[in-house]
Amino acid sequence: MRAGVFDSGVGGLTVVKSLLEHSLFDEIIYFGDTARVPYGIKDKNTIIRYSLEAVEFFKNFDIDILIAACNSVSAYAIDELKAVAPFKVSGVIQPGVKALTNKAKNLDAKILILGTKATINSQKYKRLLNSQGYYNINSLATSLFVPVVEEGLFEGDVLKSVMNHYFDGIDEPDFIILGCTHFPLIKNEISKFFPNATLIHSGEAVVWFLKNSFNIPKSKSQTSLKLFASENPDKLKEVAKKWLYNS
Amino acid sequence: MRAGVFDSGVGGLTVVKSLLEHSLFDEIIYFGDTARVPYGIKDKNTIIRYSLEAVEFFKNFDIDILIAACNSVSAYAIDELKAVAPFKVSGVIQPGVKALTNKAKNLDAKILILGTKATINSQKYKRLLNSQGYYNINSLATSLFVPVVEEGLFEGDVLKSVMNHYFDGIDEPDFIILGCTHFPLIKNEISKFFPNATLIHSGEAVVWFLKNSFNIPKSKSQTSLKLFASENPDKLKEVAKKWLYNS
Repeated sequence: MRAGVFDSGVGGLTVVKSLLEHSLFDEIIYFGDTARVPYGIKDKNTIIRYSLEAVEFFKNFDIDILIAACNSVSAYAIDELKAVAPFKVSGVIQPGVKALTNKAKNLDAKILILGTKATINSQKYKRLLNSQGYYNINSLATSLFVPVVEEGLFEGDVLKSVMNHYFDGIDEPDFIILGCTHFPLIKNEISKFFPNATLIHSGEAVVWFLKNSFNIPKSKSQTSLKLFASENPDKLKEVAKKWLYNS
Repeated sequence: MRAGVFDSGVGGLTVVKSLLEHSLFDEIIYFGDTARVPYGIKDKNTIIRYSLEAVEFFKNFDIDILIAACNSVSAYAIDELKAVAPFKVSGVIQPGVKALTNKAKNLDAKILILGTKATINSQKYKRLLNSQGYYNINSLATSLFVPVVEEGLFEGDVLKSVMNHYFDGIDEPDFIILGCTHFPLIKNEISKFFPNATLIHSGEAVVWFLKNSFNIPKSKSQTSLKLFASENPDKLKEVAKKWLYNS
């Protein structure tokens, strides 16, 4: 099977990493809209427009399923994508919520949702969790995490002061939803701040969800990965080398 | 006279503020490309493409001059803008260098250039200063200043730790070029770090440059300002109220 993975930039590679680890597909076509990144600070209508343009790109490939790895896209454009795409579509929010409900057996579990402004403002995670009966929910738009990660500051004083800024006065939650593809890259530092919280990672959540919802057979061959970007594909390939293959 | 002011987002309003204070124009048409902001992390070709599209927008108005308030546009696209625009075009880099040379009488003056990745990588400031005989030049891509300002953190621990990150080990310069429209908003904090350095502000530089290079008569009426954005013009208007009129 062949999957398309769509993200606003390089962040969706954290989802690709999980897909590769589980050899879920024979081939993955990745498209990062690096010429218009980031989406997380943009409007609903803009995000929908950009996402529909990405569908046109993926029509050039014979993909079986499109995974919108970007939480902002999943928050605002998933219905629009499903309406026009000639292939299956999965976001990361429904899988993230499913991953949480698999683990959080008590409905009074304290849940902290972290995301971009777009994702948090959409209230997509919160509403889905509410509809499942969870009510102890705190949402935080931790916008600066994205540029800090983009700057390569996965630890250290800058990240610490940014975490203090957002997390000061926040009670330790039982579960934290990493509602942005960039956040798994700083999960160790988040865990230092909240050592007892269980983190929900979009990549892992998507793997579980795809296996269980779409009955995707495990690929027997090694997954081949093709990388495309709306600008500077070389930078995407460089980041992929580092994040995916640690080289 | 009527001016167009073009920026990647809301940052160019710091240049508009200077233009308003000096009543340089009867009317200012502002366009912020908020649907694709920020430009400072993007490629040369992308920035040129977006800038040429902005020219098309300004053709709808009978402007006498277009001011590219964005340093990244001034760094990469100014020649292309001048080649196609049916009106005069001014960037902010040449004015900034002129403002500095007016003040820095010694060619061994220590100059620190701050800007986005695009502006610093272009080496536009550095080359212009070199051609004028200055050689004691340090360039720093202080990328995180933009999202920190966008987050409204004009002072405090986050900004301090970000400044420490970039400025630690940097000798105090005689002059600092604020090579991004966002940076005047944190000029007080920059001055706390380097109390003896003279700051060069794009807005002030452009006013001086326009007066002296284009012989623009001082407008007798109050400048009327029209604001446009490629997404969320309401947010632009809100920021304008706060930055321009402190209300």
